[in-house]
Amino acid sequence: MGAVVPNKQVLFKDYVVGFPKESDMVVTAGEITLRLPEDAGNSVLVKSLYLSCDPYLRSFMSKLVGSNAQSFVPGKPIFGFGVAKVLESKYPDHKEGDLVWGTIGWEEYSIIKEPQNLFKMKYTDLPLSYYTGILGMPGLTAYAGFFEICAPKSGESVYVSAASGAVGQLVGQFAKLHGCFVVGSAGSKEKVDLLKNKFGFDDAFNYKEESDLNAALKRYFPEGIDIYFENVGGAMLDAVLLNMKKNGRIAVCGMISQYNLEKAEGVFNLIHVLLKSIRMVGFQAFDHYHIYPKFVEETHRLIKEGKIIYVEDIVEGIENAPAALIGLFKGRNVGKQVVVIAPE
Amino acid sequence: MGAVVPNKQVLFKDYVVGFPKESDMVVTAGEITLRLPEDAGNSVLVKSLYLSCDPYLRSFMSKLVGSNAQSFVPGKPIFGFGVAKVLESKYPDHKEGDLVWGTIGWEEYSIIKEPQNLFKMKYTDLPLSYYTGILGMPGLTAYAGFFEICAPKSGESVYVSAASGAVGQLVGQFAKLHGCFVVGSAGSKEKVDLLKNKFGFDDAFNYKEESDLNAALKRYFPEGIDIYFENVGGAMLDAVLLNMKKNGRIAVCGMISQYNLEKAEGVFNLIHVLLKSIRMVGFQAFDHYHIYPKFVEETHRLIKEGKIIYVEDIVEGIENAPAALIGLFKGRNVGKQVVVIAPE
Repeated sequence: MGAVVPNKQVLFKDYVVGFPKESDMVVTAGEITLRLPEDAGNSVLVKSLYLSCDPYLRSFMSKLVGSNAQSFVPGKPIFGFGVAKVLESKYPDHKEGDLVWGTIGWEEYSIIKEPQNLFKMKYTDLPLSYYTGILGMPGLTAYAGFFEICAPKSGESVYVSAASGAVGQLVGQFAKLHGCFVVGSAGSKEKVDLLKNKFGFDDAFNYKEESDLNAALKRYFPEGIDIYFENVGGAMLDAVLLNMKKNGRIAVCGMISQYNLEKAEGVFNLIHVLLKSIRMVGFQAFDHYHIYPKFVEETHRLIKEGKIIYVEDIVEGIENAPAALIGLFKGRNVGKQVVVIAPE
Repeated sequence: MGAVVPNKQVLFKDYVVGFPKESDMVVTAGEITLRLPEDAGNSVLVKSLYLSCDPYLRSFMSKLVGSNAQSFVPGKPIFGFGVAKVLESKYPDHKEGDLVWGTIGWEEYSIIKEPQNLFKMKYTDLPLSYYTGILGMPGLTAYAGFFEICAPKSGESVYVSAASGAVGQLVGQFAKLHGCFVVGSAGSKEKVDLLKNKFGFDDAFNYKEESDLNAALKRYFPEGIDIYFENVGGAMLDAVLLNMKKNGRIAVCGMISQYNLEKAEGVFNLIHVLLKSIRMVGFQAFDHYHIYPKFVEETHRLIKEGKIIYVEDIVEGIENAPAALIGLFKGRNVGKQVVVIAPE
């Protein structure tokens, strides 16, 4: 018999249409027995350390999205990427005391029934929260999206939207290290300053201050854009299409401007995909999981050498997780949004 | 001194907004001296045999399109792909009597100032008009678009819009020869019959009879579409996006539904590019000119072996060229639209 301890959880209330609210989630004070049941199969019991707030979680709040649809279950905890410590394991790859990252519940303690979705950490000499970001899924997204999808050449012009977010800040820095000219956009002066002064983008602008996105892009890219790292969609994509160069590449990583709309915005300039022989590729980090070892080794080295800067926006306490998640869609976070559940 | 002979020309009247009309072109009865002037540089004088009517010519009627914009010049002859016979040449690669294909003027005799845009014919044991289609630019478009852009696998599901046109009919047949399941759409019963009974598509439908394109595609592709060969754009693309499978590929070859609109239709379902990791690639045949020799050898063999059928819609006389071109946008042609200028 294990000890019975409090276990706060963030439960999903019901499917969301339109803009999600904090009240679409409920934080409850439950309990858990810190022992896997006899019939637990190959489950793993973990203690949650960090939760990751990522824009793609919005799609799990809708009842149906595309063919590979996955949704949260009303009345059950939200789930997503996180960092955790193994308390007990019936799965041979993980043992008590292991630090892992992967899909966990939004709760203080979580029984993971699909432990193949938990990954070992290769390095523990950096903040463990980095595995929700630069060393985890968003990092792999930036790396695979930029290097595999965009096939960048030194000297090319790169535009990144939502550029101060978990993925955008890394894409910009990978692009600079690769010898590209990089401009980013974000939604506040603070974020724009971060892009220019901390992440080393060549330039950056606040898209909320631009009444004409096409004109803004022409100002920053008078010769046009070779590579667009798409995190936004809608009107931004439309303006970018007008400014792409021949043989341009668009890595479609996210479309955060569209997630909360009941009806998506139209995109009107797709003829430019044809006129300019543009390659536009949607992707997900785990399509490229085979390059994770190479990615994590290289990125760890770049961090240690001070060649990559990483900014997190850290919120304390599971009670604040719903607000942190909603904040993403309002652009409240500055850098990667993380929630600390327990000290390491 | 060369002989002075009549030279009918199709002149471009002025830039077009919206749907083009026959009266946007004028057929004039001019004259030409059948001798290159002394200062003709490396020009080539040709006699036109066949003119090719292709949807992309619409873009040359607008004042400005994209970064690689090229337009017809008001008061000058229309130009486009054609088949011709060399009468005189100051360009070392071509000599009197050569049969060539490439960019020529819409006129009975044409002085070609960029003779590098004229290509030799590798085979002359098929109708020469084939070099405006199956052995020329549309053929290379179908071949490169399908094999290079779509990277098809045997057993995959392929959807082709505008499927009875010069490119579509070939894509469908290449896909069948490759072991794919192929469905095409077109705009009349006659064309649908052609797809099913002559070109060997697995199935075909008349898009004009479908009030709900999404439902139509679900009927023909209950498991979804792996490869979409896009000739249409707009609402068709929107419906296709809903029906693409994970890791689907879209070769953007044309968007004929959009060329004559003053404002393009919006496309609302691009989020599926992300959700399904779709690769959407705009291309032009000449991006892939390096594979022309392989393409023409293989396609010539397939025609000779009776494994590929090719249907042309042939109109006689340069006077009828404007109507033939406009007819493309009304879907009047059945098969590749060609205009005969002179017998071989």
